[in-house]
Amino acid sequence: MKKLSQILNQSPVSEFGFGNTSNGSGQRILNKDGTANIKRIGEPRFNVVNVYHSLITITWTKFIFVVFVFYFFLNLFFSLIYYFLCPDAIAGMMYNSELEKFTEIFFFSSQSLTTVGYGRLNPTGLFASSIAGIESMMGLLGFALATGLLYGRFSRPTAKLLYSENIIIAPYSHPTYSIGTPTALMFRVANARRNQLIEVEALVLFSYNQNVNGVSQRKFANLKLEITKISFLALSWTLVHPINEESPLRNLTEKDFKELDVEFMISLKAIDDTYAQQIYDRNSYFWNELKWGAKFLPMTTKSDDGTTTIDLKKISKIENIEIKNA
Amino acid sequence: MKKLSQILNQSPVSEFGFGNTSNGSGQRILNKDGTANIKRIGEPRFNVVNVYHSLITITWTKFIFVVFVFYFFLNLFFSLIYYFLCPDAIAGMMYNSELEKFTEIFFFSSQSLTTVGYGRLNPTGLFASSIAGIESMMGLLGFALATGLLYGRFSRPTAKLLYSENIIIAPYSHPTYSIGTPTALMFRVANARRNQLIEVEALVLFSYNQNVNGVSQRKFANLKLEITKISFLALSWTLVHPINEESPLRNLTEKDFKELDVEFMISLKAIDDTYAQQIYDRNSYFWNELKWGAKFLPMTTKSDDGTTTIDLKKISKIENIEIKNA
Amino acid sequence: MKKLSQILNQSPVSEFGFGNTSNGSGQRILNKDGTANIKRIGEPRFNVVNVYHSLITITWTKFIFVVFVFYFFLNLFFSLIYYFLCPDAIAGMMYNSELEKFTEIFFFSSQSLTTVGYGRLNPTGLFASSIAGIESMMGLLGFALATGLLYGRFSRPTAKLLYSENIIIAPYSHPTYSIGTPTALMFRVANARRNQLIEVEALVLFSYNQNVNGVSQRKFANLKLEITKISFLALSWTLVHPINEESPLRNLTEKDFKELDVEFMISLKAIDDTYAQQIYDRNSYFWNELKWGAKFLPMTTKSDDGTTTIDLKKISKIENIEIKNA
Amino acid sequence: MKKLSQILNQSPVSEFGFGNTSNGSGQRILNKDGTANIKRIGEPRFNVVNVYHSLITITWTKFIFVVFVFYFFLNLFFSLIYYFLCPDAIAGMMYNSELEKFTEIFFFSSQSLTTVGYGRLNPTGLFASSIAGIESMMGLLGFALATGLLYGRFSRPTAKLLYSENIIIAPYSHPTYSIGTPTALMFRVANARRNQLIEVEALVLFSYNQNVNGVSQRKFANLKLEITKISFLALSWTLVHPINEESPLRNLTEKDFKELDVEFMISLKAIDDTYAQQIYDRNSYFWNELKWGAKFLPMTTKSDDGTTTIDLKKISKIENIEIKNA
Repeated sequence: MKKLSQILNQSPVSEFGFGNTSNGSGQRILNKDGTANIKRIGEPRFNVVNVYHSLITITWTKFIFVVFVFYFFLNLFFSLIYYFLCPDAIAGMMYNSELEKFTEIFFFSSQSLTTVGYGRLNPTGLFASSIAGIESMMGLLGFALATGLLYGRFSRPTAKLLYSENIIIAPYSHPTYSIGTPTALMFRVANARRNQLIEVEALVLFSYNQNVNGVSQRKFANLKLEITKISFLALSWTLVHPINEESPLRNLTEKDFKELDVEFMISLKAIDDTYAQQIYDRNSYFWNELKWGAKFLPMTTKSDDGTTTIDLKKISKIENIEIKNA
Repeated sequence: MKKLSQILNQSPVSEFGFGNTSNGSGQRILNKDGTANIKRIGEPRFNVVNVYHSLITITWTKFIFVVFVFYFFLNLFFSLIYYFLCPDAIAGMMYNSELEKFTEIFFFSSQSLTTVGYGRLNPTGLFASSIAGIESMMGLLGFALATGLLYGRFSRPTAKLLYSENIIIAPYSHPTYSIGTPTALMFRVANARRNQLIEVEALVLFSYNQNVNGVSQRKFANLKLEITKISFLALSWTLVHPINEESPLRNLTEKDFKELDVEFMISLKAIDDTYAQQIYDRNSYFWNELKWGAKFLPMTTKSDDGTTTIDLKKISKIENIEIKNA
Repeated sequence: MKKLSQILNQSPVSEFGFGNTSNGSGQRILNKDGTANIKRIGEPRFNVVNVYHSLITITWTKFIFVVFVFYFFLNLFFSLIYYFLCPDAIAGMMYNSELEKFTEIFFFSSQSLTTVGYGRLNPTGLFASSIAGIESMMGLLGFALATGLLYGRFSRPTAKLLYSENIIIAPYSHPTYSIGTPTALMFRVANARRNQLIEVEALVLFSYNQNVNGVSQRKFANLKLEITKISFLALSWTLVHPINEESPLRNLTEKDFKELDVEFMISLKAIDDTYAQQIYDRNSYFWNELKWGAKFLPMTTKSDDGTTTIDLKKISKIENIEIKNA
Repeated sequence: MKKLSQILNQSPVSEFGFGNTSNGSGQRILNKDGTANIKRIGEPRFNVVNVYHSLITITWTKFIFVVFVFYFFLNLFFSLIYYFLCPDAIAGMMYNSELEKFTEIFFFSSQSLTTVGYGRLNPTGLFASSIAGIESMMGLLGFALATGLLYGRFSRPTAKLLYSENIIIAPYSHPTYSIGTPTALMFRVANARRNQLIEVEALVLFSYNQNVNGVSQRKFANLKLEITKISFLALSWTLVHPINEESPLRNLTEKDFKELDVEFMISLKAIDDTYAQQIYDRNSYFWNELKWGAKFLPMTTKSDDGTTTIDLKKISKIENIEIKNA
């Protein structure tokens, strides 16, 4: 029998872009949203593309808030110009106090910015008319920007995949693997959205700490899946890594997973049929999300008329099941 | 000679993402529009991307209806605010009755929303002016949204492929296949649009019910095509699966297709040359769309000056032809 | 020595999507712009995507004409509604004749459509105000459409490749090909635009008529290139098909090219580095564009300070050169 | 031992699209921004797509300047038409001098172009109203164009990769390479932006002058990397070309790099996870950017709580290190 370190050493270490320094203190490497758990400093300063990136990826609530705040302050900025530099150049104002005057100017500014331009309030003279011209133009450019951002947010290819809460180790039998107590590592995915996902492909990485000459190093190994690609994600897909002779998990006990700080990193790619776009999704299961001895319960039912129904809420439903020693 | 079950068992079952539970009652698995014939429940609730997805994929009639209804109700919503909260803040109204007053307010609201702002009707006072400012802004954002949706609808890569109505089993001879009565499974596709389709690739799946230990299971097998990729879909393309020794259809009779609930699932991909976009199309032929003993009639004619003409209406034109037993 | 028909028969016929019916009367198969020289009838009727496709691919002159005509007639359509159904509901008109009245209404309509809404002309009453509301909204939607079309036109991935006017047969020596008088078929491409083309890949097809049992059939064969992919199209690229033992052109004389109605079909793909988009280009050389015995002159010069200059106008510059018999 | 020329001759010369004429005077082939160091003349004249290309790739400062200048001159152009052809057709003007009259006309034009149309200034008569209608329409089309350009600028897939300032030759040991003094050629990249780069792939080309029959020719060779693809660029990536028996750099001394006018051309491709877009980046190191005998210092630190921090400013930090002769 091979020794654990021999088995674990088989896969090349550095091809996954995470280096080989150990985390040591039990932090995960890949966050649940697929980003790396790494702090970045020394980034190049302000950059238009980074701002666009943020505006595309923030939540809708924040995005709408940003749009309104931006509109309000741009409006206010121009109001202050009119108020302090040419307060009497706005024709048609009706006011009884200085505050009402500013209010009228503020709304003139707003009517210029949105290009609604009712006309009761209108600019006279060279200076106010120039500023109003620039304001209208900036208003249109601002809404051109908003158009681009809205479209960018919508058209961004995003899969919404549902993952089972746990990755499990379940009894498993397959003609070609029949050594000891046959088990397999499994987790389940389904498409949370109504768009069609086709040509779905998966890669599962096994990451763990290893003691090399007294220094704890982070190691990575590829886990071979029984099926790595399906042509259509119509129902759910249970990804299965059989723990056979070749598996780096071959001799690990339940306790080892914690001690080795094990993390399973999932990388999925698919084609979104609606936009014919390639889609990428990442996820990870940390050792405390591993369930030893369980099996997934079915998500589909069939009615009498032959209709198949899938219940997405059952994605994480498991049943405990004992794994006997060989 | 191999037994049917042996032949049918050769291809792996679960790589097509449909599981292996039998339909039993004769419903098809893949709808004619390429979506899966599956009911989904337990979906995550309201989601912006799903709404966008719907607005992109509904018919043009429905889309235009949605836009008008949305515009009308947004308009009405603001009208009610003005009418109940600041009815006299709209300057320039001409009315003789309460209804006419509301009408004037409704049109003021409409003129703000579209930013046409003629100006006869215009807001006065802090409250009405603020609401009008917000309305104009929402109007512009709404049309920004409409711009994105219109572009999204247009630029969505969609092939419109014409398929022959029937999939046929025809006599067929080829030097390399010469056993028994040589036949082949065939269907025909053509490009319904004027854009150029290049690098067209096809995959044909054979799906059927099989009795496994008394339980009816759904099985899938890949059908090998004579040609799986063409570099340019200029005319029509007849896809041919020769029913030879290796074919899972080898020993099936006409009657078997019905009894096994046979379905042929077609997956085509191509590149739309106009937008250089990958395009995906799916279709399926159920057993009742299979024509036993037929051949396709030509779609092209050649005039005296050498011009080739293709008549797309002839895509499904077939001629009955007897298949003799060997 | 193999017979011509044997050599020509080596490549599979039907993988190029053009069928095998002969043109006979000397028309080319692929037009110079890469579209197929085929007439299509029986197309499905009016289709929104076809209209979009046309508006994206017509010339800029035609596109601008279409936009103006569309704007004018939409404007006119609404004018006629106001003029015949509510002529006196437009406030602020100044006119002395019926024609001037219509003119005023026409411009009111125009001011509503563009949402400029000066306000001198403004709608009164339920009917005119409703129509004006719809017109403003349609104006905005129309310009939303124009935005999408403009963006679609600009962002469409299009390579502009320059091809040499002629495809030539030139003397050619290469260590690995040394039979008889070594010649090669060559043509030259360069990038007409300033964007970077990378990973440029080529496929050359040889198409000719062949007499099969007394019927003239169209045959296709792949021509093997010395280099089929370059990683960067910085200068020009001369594509070379060595006419060696394996070439289907092995025994053809100058006269044969005409008699066989020979056409060379070129298919190029590349990545446009600016938008990271795949780009496809097709072209064809008919037998009358073949030059027997010529070589390309260099397009680049080098100044004293080491700067390399490429002159795109020299792409088709050739020099006659005698091909001696072996 | 093989002779240098033999080693250098192994890789095919012309597959990189740069031809084989020598630079001679020590100019680099590929600029640091990934464009070719080549002057182009004879380009086809004015082309809409080239203009779009320029407007997409110029800096933001220039872009905003172009938009304002365009707006100003379009505005001025229409002002001149009104002023000279129908000066009295603009109603509502207030002026005391000819200059003030022109100013009022200029602002009327501006109010039409932005469609703000306050209404104090408004067109009367057939001619002025027509021009104003066209101006409003052009204004909207202009902003439609600006929308497309803004979106085009933002959505353009651009990686911002940080490269180490120098390419270094460092001592290097690896079980499989153990001849002489083992060294390797190395450089380092990191992601300057916050978006996730996945499936990062690299190609490194070695380019040098070689004397062939007395003529200096430019030669190219591929440098084999230890790892050519990583699945996630989370931290930094040090690309390593081991200088072993098979390396074309095998027998080169520090002095040779200068004499051969050596240039290393880097081509990287990756997927930007946010937009699921393929991204291409090129760079080059000229011989004077090569550092003989150095090693990269680490960019990451680990805090006590296990958080990994990467400092992008340290990308070029190296330490001199002696390379002993074998």
